[in-house]
Amino acid sequence: MKDITLKEIAFQLGISITTVSKALKDYPDVSPQTRNAVKKLAQELHYTPNSFAVNLRTKESKTIGLIVPELVHHFFSNVVNAIINEAEKNGYLVIILQSNESLALEKKQVELLINKRVDGIIMSLSNDSNNDDHIKGICARNIPFVMFDKISKLSTCSKVVINDQKAAFNAVQHLIDMGCKKIAHIRGPANPQNSVDRFIGFKKALEKNNIVFDPSLVYTCENVSFEEGKHFAEQIINDHKDIDGIFAITDLVAVGVLAYLNEKEIKIPAQIAVIGFSNWFMSQVLSPKLSTVDQPSREMGIESFNLLLEEMNCHKEGKIFKPRTIELKTSVIIRDSTMKIVI
Amino acid sequence: MKDITLKEIAFQLGISITTVSKALKDYPDVSPQTRNAVKKLAQELHYTPNSFAVNLRTKESKTIGLIVPELVHHFFSNVVNAIINEAEKNGYLVIILQSNESLALEKKQVELLINKRVDGIIMSLSNDSNNDDHIKGICARNIPFVMFDKISKLSTCSKVVINDQKAAFNAVQHLIDMGCKKIAHIRGPANPQNSVDRFIGFKKALEKNNIVFDPSLVYTCENVSFEEGKHFAEQIINDHKDIDGIFAITDLVAVGVLAYLNEKEIKIPAQIAVIGFSNWFMSQVLSPKLSTVDQPSREMGIESFNLLLEEMNCHKEGKIFKPRTIELKTSVIIRDSTMKIVI
Repeated sequence: MKDITLKEIAFQLGISITTVSKALKDYPDVSPQTRNAVKKLAQELHYTPNSFAVNLRTKESKTIGLIVPELVHHFFSNVVNAIINEAEKNGYLVIILQSNESLALEKKQVELLINKRVDGIIMSLSNDSNNDDHIKGICARNIPFVMFDKISKLSTCSKVVINDQKAAFNAVQHLIDMGCKKIAHIRGPANPQNSVDRFIGFKKALEKNNIVFDPSLVYTCENVSFEEGKHFAEQIINDHKDIDGIFAITDLVAVGVLAYLNEKEIKIPAQIAVIGFSNWFMSQVLSPKLSTVDQPSREMGIESFNLLLEEMNCHKEGKIFKPRTIELKTSVIIRDSTMKIVI
Repeated sequence: MKDITLKEIAFQLGISITTVSKALKDYPDVSPQTRNAVKKLAQELHYTPNSFAVNLRTKESKTIGLIVPELVHHFFSNVVNAIINEAEKNGYLVIILQSNESLALEKKQVELLINKRVDGIIMSLSNDSNNDDHIKGICARNIPFVMFDKISKLSTCSKVVINDQKAAFNAVQHLIDMGCKKIAHIRGPANPQNSVDRFIGFKKALEKNNIVFDPSLVYTCENVSFEEGKHFAEQIINDHKDIDGIFAITDLVAVGVLAYLNEKEIKIPAQIAVIGFSNWFMSQVLSPKLSTVDQPSREMGIESFNLLLEEMNCHKEGKIFKPRTIELKTSVIIRDSTMKIVI
């Protein structure tokens, strides 16, 4: 495609480049006739301002980068959805990358975005992320930066999170309130802060209720998948005949648990109560409907973008921005999978 | 952030800008000592090439634009996933926009991407799209362009599609093979080509089997949602007591149908068989497991990007590219929701 330039328009109309530029920007010192002629020709020739040149002048790309572990995940696609919509409302475009839960890829993608000169970066860490040199790199370059959900506690940037410990505590407390006495936990991998925090919440709820913590009741996912839910449900039943409650790290895993228990015709919740985490849309469609912790994904996306926007604006005006952490509220959603009749 | 320039590095080392530029590009006429000194300082100062300037020189942004109706949809998030991964492998970043099924927004987003000077655009139309002026605008500017799934048949660009008519025909033929005699169709809105084609496939299957087409058995979705699935299932039962099969435009709607029938304790498939479309991951987790048409979302993403890449490469080399249409295979996945015992 040959780029149509201001020069081309000026040449065709026999006027100066400055006049063309002023006409397109509606400057009052250009006559309405000239303005209309310029605009008409610009439209006919499909003239668009060269954004690379505009970027070079303004030092802004009006583009932000977003790195998520994976897009095909109810929670993340909801957050991404909210970020894209919020960004567009504010005149920003979003480049999206997926780390596929790999630290190496995540590091490479941070470099890509920095080289692309995005105006800011929003990120949720991969499960693999056990060091934060690349995050320090973003901060060292003074690039506006927000982490959400899966964060690194050590870094000094802005964060949008939930209180995973408290949320998990409430989920397990609910199982205990429903009469569960022997509760297994299918936890996430070792690195992500939120899987550690949910595990701590689980332990604290047991402690509070004078239930002795038994490490053999904790099962650790690698991929946090539906298949792992099924697999660990089978293992739990084999290892502990008298289990009466299961708390799964996320709804996808809990759905796997339900699928296995249904297959084996184990009554939910009469025999085993099950609770998940994240309030996936599907959790209310299943049979039985899944109890879970509601994680406000849309709000998380909106708050993340708005924090970034604030920092980008400060940055543009040369003001100092003080990073903030926003903690969003969660709630336990009680459905059929835990509604035991307590006598 | 103050941008570190080649000039700054040259100044600090007391050498010329040309030498710094050559050293960073590993030109052989720069001594190893100088090269190492330049690279060391560039790293210390967090030097990154100014991508705006690079873009202005190469006229490439190494960025493509992707517009989808909505991201929070199993099918689209899978396609987007595949496009992002394929693009990254080939050195491209992806800006993602959602039309939220609005033609006005879609038009605005096409303009945004053109102004952004993306190297190419991939798009799936919104349900609202009943004219293609904006698509003609992309083609008029000779911007590499691929449409997938929800396409406009009239436009001359490359396309990646399935044969929706044939796929729907096969789904309905399967219901008939399972003994269904009175089949309702919950169809999509009037505009999208694929909802029209699935409806035609439905009609053709009836015709082929000498079943008279009854327009009162067709129900039209507005939002293609779970709630509409529930709502229309109720209406179908009320309107037609002897209904024995339902073909839904997509799995999400079919899941709504299952939810309603389960609630009312109507036996699936003994009383009513149900088949969906798209093979959403969740369709195999439900009770009963949902029969459906497998729509190859990952393949669709990969083929779309590769077609675009081919066109972008032709474009770069000044060669003529002839648009192509790729039709991907689908298959009927038979699960519990249609497994009637035919006597």
